[in-house]
Amino acid sequence: MQSPTVFHAPKRLLMGPGPSDAAPSVLKAMAMPLVGHLDPSFIQMMEEIKGMLRSVFQTTHNMTFPVSGTGSAGMEFCMVNLVEPGDEVVVCINGVFGMRMAEVAERCGAKVIKVEAPWGQIIEASQVAKALEGRKPKLVGLVHAETSTGALTPVEEISELAHQAGALMLLDTVTSLAGCEVNVDKWQIDAVYSGTQKCLSCPPGLSPVSLSDKALEVAQSRRERVQSWYLDVNLLNGYWGTERVYHHTAPISMNYALHEALRLVLEEGLETRWKRHQQNHERLVAGLSEMGLGIASQPGHQLWQLNAVTVPEGIDEASVRQQLLKDHQIEVGAGLGPLKGKIWRVGLMGESSRPEHVDQLLGSLKSILSR
Amino acid sequence: MQSPTVFHAPKRLLMGPGPSDAAPSVLKAMAMPLVGHLDPSFIQMMEEIKGMLRSVFQTTHNMTFPVSGTGSAGMEFCMVNLVEPGDEVVVCINGVFGMRMAEVAERCGAKVIKVEAPWGQIIEASQVAKALEGRKPKLVGLVHAETSTGALTPVEEISELAHQAGALMLLDTVTSLAGCEVNVDKWQIDAVYSGTQKCLSCPPGLSPVSLSDKALEVAQSRRERVQSWYLDVNLLNGYWGTERVYHHTAPISMNYALHEALRLVLEEGLETRWKRHQQNHERLVAGLSEMGLGIASQPGHQLWQLNAVTVPEGIDEASVRQQLLKDHQIEVGAGLGPLKGKIWRVGLMGESSRPEHVDQLLGSLKSILSR
Repeated sequence: MQSPTVFHAPKRLLMGPGPSDAAPSVLKAMAMPLVGHLDPSFIQMMEEIKGMLRSVFQTTHNMTFPVSGTGSAGMEFCMVNLVEPGDEVVVCINGVFGMRMAEVAERCGAKVIKVEAPWGQIIEASQVAKALEGRKPKLVGLVHAETSTGALTPVEEISELAHQAGALMLLDTVTSLAGCEVNVDKWQIDAVYSGTQKCLSCPPGLSPVSLSDKALEVAQSRRERVQSWYLDVNLLNGYWGTERVYHHTAPISMNYALHEALRLVLEEGLETRWKRHQQNHERLVAGLSEMGLGIASQPGHQLWQLNAVTVPEGIDEASVRQQLLKDHQIEVGAGLGPLKGKIWRVGLMGESSRPEHVDQLLGSLKSILSR
Repeated sequence: MQSPTVFHAPKRLLMGPGPSDAAPSVLKAMAMPLVGHLDPSFIQMMEEIKGMLRSVFQTTHNMTFPVSGTGSAGMEFCMVNLVEPGDEVVVCINGVFGMRMAEVAERCGAKVIKVEAPWGQIIEASQVAKALEGRKPKLVGLVHAETSTGALTPVEEISELAHQAGALMLLDTVTSLAGCEVNVDKWQIDAVYSGTQKCLSCPPGLSPVSLSDKALEVAQSRRERVQSWYLDVNLLNGYWGTERVYHHTAPISMNYALHEALRLVLEEGLETRWKRHQQNHERLVAGLSEMGLGIASQPGHQLWQLNAVTVPEGIDEASVRQQLLKDHQIEVGAGLGPLKGKIWRVGLMGESSRPEHVDQLLGSLKSILSR
C-alpha cells in the first residue's frame, strides 16, 4: 500500500447531532505534551475535572469522573455496574437511545420492562407509574434529551416514582448536559452519564458519569462480578479515588481537553449557557417558521440544542444535507429509524450555538431550497 | 468551588511504561478542528487508518481497526467477542497483563486454564503443549511483551500448538507493536490488540485490533449475544466496515492523531524502527552496566522498549523515581506485584527511544545514585 499523506481536516461548521465545534482553547489543550497518567500534575488535574463535573452535573456525588470511552461506554458503565442477571429493569423508550439502553440492559441479563412513546413525543410520568404498579424493579432508565428526536422529557416526577418503587434512577444526559438544566441532586438521580462532544464542546472520547452513594453501594455489594473489567467501578474507584491504583492508562490529552471545556462552561455560568442555548433555538425556530418549516418534536418539549426540522414534502432530505456540507461546509444530521427522511437534525450545542451560525444555516438552507 | 485555572502540562521526558512522548506533528494533528464522524473526509481517513494498521500489524485481515478505548478495552474486545460462557480458554501468565487477560476471560464466563511462569521469565512452548494435552480449548491467550516485567515471549511455536489443538490464537501486542517484530499473518494470530501510547507514540485512548476471518466467523456465529454492546464486533463491523451504520461517535481527534502516528511509523519503516529500538536498548544496557546495574528479566528475551532495571541493594527506588521526575523531568515506572520495589521500568518506546534520551537518563540516574 502507498503510504497515505498527512491528513488535513476540512473546516466545517458542526450543526449536527454531535460532535459540536470545540473552542480554540480546547483544541489547543489537546496539543499539549503528554505527561504520565500517574504524574502528580495529572492527578491534580483529575481532581479538578471531578470537581468541575460535580458543578456541571449539580451534584455532590463523590463518584463523579469521566469514563475512558464515548457516551455509549458511559451508558454501559452504568448498566454493567448496577444490573445483575435476572434483575427487573424499567426502560423508557422514545427514540434510538432508549432502545439502546434497553438492549444494553438485556445484555447484562436484565428482564426489561419497556415504557414506550412515539418518536418525537416525551415519556409521560403516568406511563411510568403504570409500569411500576406491583413491581419492584432494580432500576428505572430514562433518556433526558433524545438526540434522535429532539424531545426533552421532564425528569423529576419520573424519578420520584422510581424511588417510591424502591428503584435506582438512571438518566442519560448525553445531549442535555450543559445545554439545559440538569440537576442530579435535586432530581435524585442515582446514575447519570453524558458525552463530551455535545454541549460540553469537547472532542468525543470520554463519558462523564456520576453515581450516588446508594448506586455505589449496589455496585459494591453485587452477587456476581461486574461482567466488564474495563468498566468495573470497583476497580475504577481505585484509580479515580484516593488510592491511585493503576487500572488502565487514562486518555491524557482527552482529559486535558475536558478540563479546559469544563472550565469554559463554568466561566460562562450554567444558567447563562442554558439561556444562550434557548435564545439560539428560538432564533432558529423563528427563521425556519418564516421559511414555512417547523419542528417535528412535541410542542412544549422541544430541545434547544437538537432541533428536529421537518423536511418539506417533495424535498430530498439527503441531497439538501449533502449540498449543505459540500457547498456550505455545514454539517446537519439525518433522521433515524421512523424519522429517516422526514427530519433534519440541527444541533445548536455548546460552541456551535451562536446567532451567527443560526443565520448562516438559515441563509444556506434558503438558497438550497429556493433552487 | 473556585473554578480551576487553565492547566499547563509540565514538559516531561516520558521514559516509563507508557505513555511515551508523542511527535510534534501528532500533537498538532490533535488540535485540528473537528469534523463529523460520518463526514466523507473522516470516512476516507478511517480507511487509511485501517490500511496503515494492517501494514503495521503485517496482516491482510479485513477486520482491522482501532477500538474506541485504551489497550485494556482492546483486550476486552477480543475476549467478549470470542468467548462464551462455559468455553475453555488457556491463558499464559507471566506478569500483570496475563493476569488481567485471565480475569477478563473469567468475566466472560470462561473456564480458564492458566499456564504460569515466574515474573520476568518467558512462557515456554513446552508449558503450553502440556496444558493443551487432551484439551480442545476455544482460545489460547498470550502476552507478547509483558510491560510489567520486560520479557518478550516468542510467539510462533505457541501459536502453532494452539492451532493444532483447534484453538484460536490471541496475542497482546500493547507494548510490542512498532517497537519489535509483530507479524500477525506469519504467526497465524486470530485476534490481536495493542495500545496507541507505547511504540506507536500516539496519545492513549485507542486500541488497534485485528481479527482473522476465522475469529470473525466465531464472533458472528455465537450462541449468545456479545455481553458488551460497546465492543460487539458485529455492530462495530457496520460502522468501520462498508455500511457506515451509526454505532457510537468515534473519537475524532484521537483518530487524527493515530493517522499521523501510523504515517510516521511507516515513513520510518518497520525494520528501521525496530533496529532503532534495539540500538537504544543496547546503549542503555551498556551504560547501566558501567554503573553496575543490570536488567532483571530473562537473558536473551529482554524487551528493547521496556527495560526492567534492577534496583541496587539499599536504594529506595521510589525516592529515586521521584527525584528523576521532580529534578530532572524524567518519568520512569515502578515495579508491580512481586517486582514492586525491586525494579525501575525504563521505557524506550517510539519517540522516546532516542540515544540522547538514553544518555540524559543515565546521567541523571548517575547523579542521583552518587549523592
